[in-house]
Amino acid sequence: MKITTVTKHFKTPLYLESGRILEPYDIAYETYGELNKDKSNVIVICHALTGSYHAAGLYEGDRKPGWWNDLIGDGKCIDTTKYFVICANVIGSCFGSTGPMSLKYPLNEPYRLRFPVITISDMVKAQISLLDSLGIYEVYAVIGGSMGGMQALCYAIEYPHFTKRNIIIASTYATQPWAIAFNKVAREAIIKDPKFDSGMYDVKDIKENGLNGLAIGRMSGHISYLSENSMQKKFGRNYVETEGLYELFGRFQVERYLDYNGYNFSKYFDPLSYLYITKAINIFDASRNYDSLEDSFSNIKSHLTLLSVKSDQLFFKEEMEQIQKSMKKINKGNLVDYHCIDSDYGHDAFLVEVEKFVPYISEALK
Amino acid sequence: MKITTVTKHFKTPLYLESGRILEPYDIAYETYGELNKDKSNVIVICHALTGSYHAAGLYEGDRKPGWWNDLIGDGKCIDTTKYFVICANVIGSCFGSTGPMSLKYPLNEPYRLRFPVITISDMVKAQISLLDSLGIYEVYAVIGGSMGGMQALCYAIEYPHFTKRNIIIASTYATQPWAIAFNKVAREAIIKDPKFDSGMYDVKDIKENGLNGLAIGRMSGHISYLSENSMQKKFGRNYVETEGLYELFGRFQVERYLDYNGYNFSKYFDPLSYLYITKAINIFDASRNYDSLEDSFSNIKSHLTLLSVKSDQLFFKEEMEQIQKSMKKINKGNLVDYHCIDSDYGHDAFLVEVEKFVPYISEALK
Repeated sequence: MKITTVTKHFKTPLYLESGRILEPYDIAYETYGELNKDKSNVIVICHALTGSYHAAGLYEGDRKPGWWNDLIGDGKCIDTTKYFVICANVIGSCFGSTGPMSLKYPLNEPYRLRFPVITISDMVKAQISLLDSLGIYEVYAVIGGSMGGMQALCYAIEYPHFTKRNIIIASTYATQPWAIAFNKVAREAIIKDPKFDSGMYDVKDIKENGLNGLAIGRMSGHISYLSENSMQKKFGRNYVETEGLYELFGRFQVERYLDYNGYNFSKYFDPLSYLYITKAINIFDASRNYDSLEDSFSNIKSHLTLLSVKSDQLFFKEEMEQIQKSMKKINKGNLVDYHCIDSDYGHDAFLVEVEKFVPYISEALK
Repeated sequence: MKITTVTKHFKTPLYLESGRILEPYDIAYETYGELNKDKSNVIVICHALTGSYHAAGLYEGDRKPGWWNDLIGDGKCIDTTKYFVICANVIGSCFGSTGPMSLKYPLNEPYRLRFPVITISDMVKAQISLLDSLGIYEVYAVIGGSMGGMQALCYAIEYPHFTKRNIIIASTYATQPWAIAFNKVAREAIIKDPKFDSGMYDVKDIKENGLNGLAIGRMSGHISYLSENSMQKKFGRNYVETEGLYELFGRFQVERYLDYNGYNFSKYFDPLSYLYITKAINIFDASRNYDSLEDSFSNIKSHLTLLSVKSDQLFFKEEMEQIQKSMKKINKGNLVDYHCIDSDYGHDAFLVEVEKFVPYISEALK
């Protein structure tokens, strides 16, 4: 599989939904496979909150491959001998695309809290400008899970002729208060960490030592990514160490998991990016600029494949079903395939039990 | 309704499960109604994590009555013209019973982190010693929700002749990793708040300004006390204020709710008590000193009424059903009544939709 990693610099302005302008801006992206002559084999992959452009392949020296490596590759479900797959880091993130810690032109110092509010539509708009710069004006499919699914839905509504297939996984039509509440815990933990210092944190220190608030926020996120059953199976009530008589002072396995993942995460993800991206997720509402969800969906011309997860505790399957319902209401039920994946893994299922999604994604790509 | 509030001082030692001893110790409690001559009309109420002895009645000048005022009172479900109701603050808490900020004898300074680990069994043992001191050697019923339900179950196992009726609401037989994870976020937020200062925090400052870590922890707790549907109904995607163009910078109603409840809470609840009580909840396992849950339940002689909540996202109804299953397995199914309350309010239903529990509690008290 041919992998190319690029950071592309744009000198043209990106007009944001807020009315503000990003200019200049960068988009970091990765491609897998090769673009065919008539540019008809493009699949766009949209990543989730903390994901990056590195969706597949193993870098030299790395222990873990890209986040959807089980799905994307030569001979795999998203077959890179056949498709040209592209995954761009969303603007606002911290893996190469312009985000809050990028240098603000012409000041030559980071935006930090001066960075504009970004929406899901803005993320998609940036991707469209990237594809445009590559001479790609329509694609074979757009696929995304979680926040990636919001982008895939946004493509269908705002760029109805751009793609024929939108595969939306473990996502929602509008972020509900339950998910906003989990984000709230994280956002509050970050903002109230004295080391966050109103966004003026010491980057070197954060990279070395992490930010407690971000670690705690990540723990809150992890709860919502799992499910009661997956936690039960994975950790039970097992202790990992005991310090005193009996087990009274011990640490539970689930606590070690959250510690490890939380503090590790806080060393490589940028706290301001976390704030900006969770904000984008919170304000996502596919009907926001329309009278209703149905009104918004009336634009849709492409085929939607909706894959929910039965045990998803972040974006409940009922939210995905609402998309189908609203499409049916405007007599576009024929454009929708909906499947609920029977997995105990909760929201994370689309990353950890990829094999259960493969048949439906394969079918959708036919 | 006659209300009496007392703090009782005990000079006798309380032998704790950890092997450590509390001596002396205080128990703050409240009673409603009057004890009859043969002391046969006693009902014990056990409170939850952040509850107190103030279960019913309205104090002069207060706007809100006790936390179970809808249930307890003259002519109410737990009828105080008939029953003598007693509710004691658990040890480890911060409303008058001995806890981490109590003075350690003979040092005359707060225990803080020198306070011993407390278990649910220890809380019950302290209540038994209180009842003993009042000459009460058996009671008509023990009732509790959430952590109160753990105590009610503990009474049934460890003091099988002490009561004929144990009413266990929205609780569990053993705390599962899902609940431990929510507590973890809270515990970590408290411990990592610089103002917590390894437990040496400035009490006056905390009471005036609160502790951010405890506020964030409380927010995490609140998510688990509600449900996706109750949040949806209560808050939807409503904004409470907008600071910029469009709604992009606004705050969601659910965020305001969490802010209000979190920061308010952090001014009146003690951070160390929160750590000690969540630890007691985490380590609660009715089978811990036995070979199995069934083995532990073989002690039970009283009647159990189990009331779960369909939408409970903290202690799932399956956990309550497990209690019934295990009782059936040892042919004690006849001692159990189980009902699942159809409420959208999640875990908090037992506090906010009391009327749905009334018929079953009334029936159990017959």
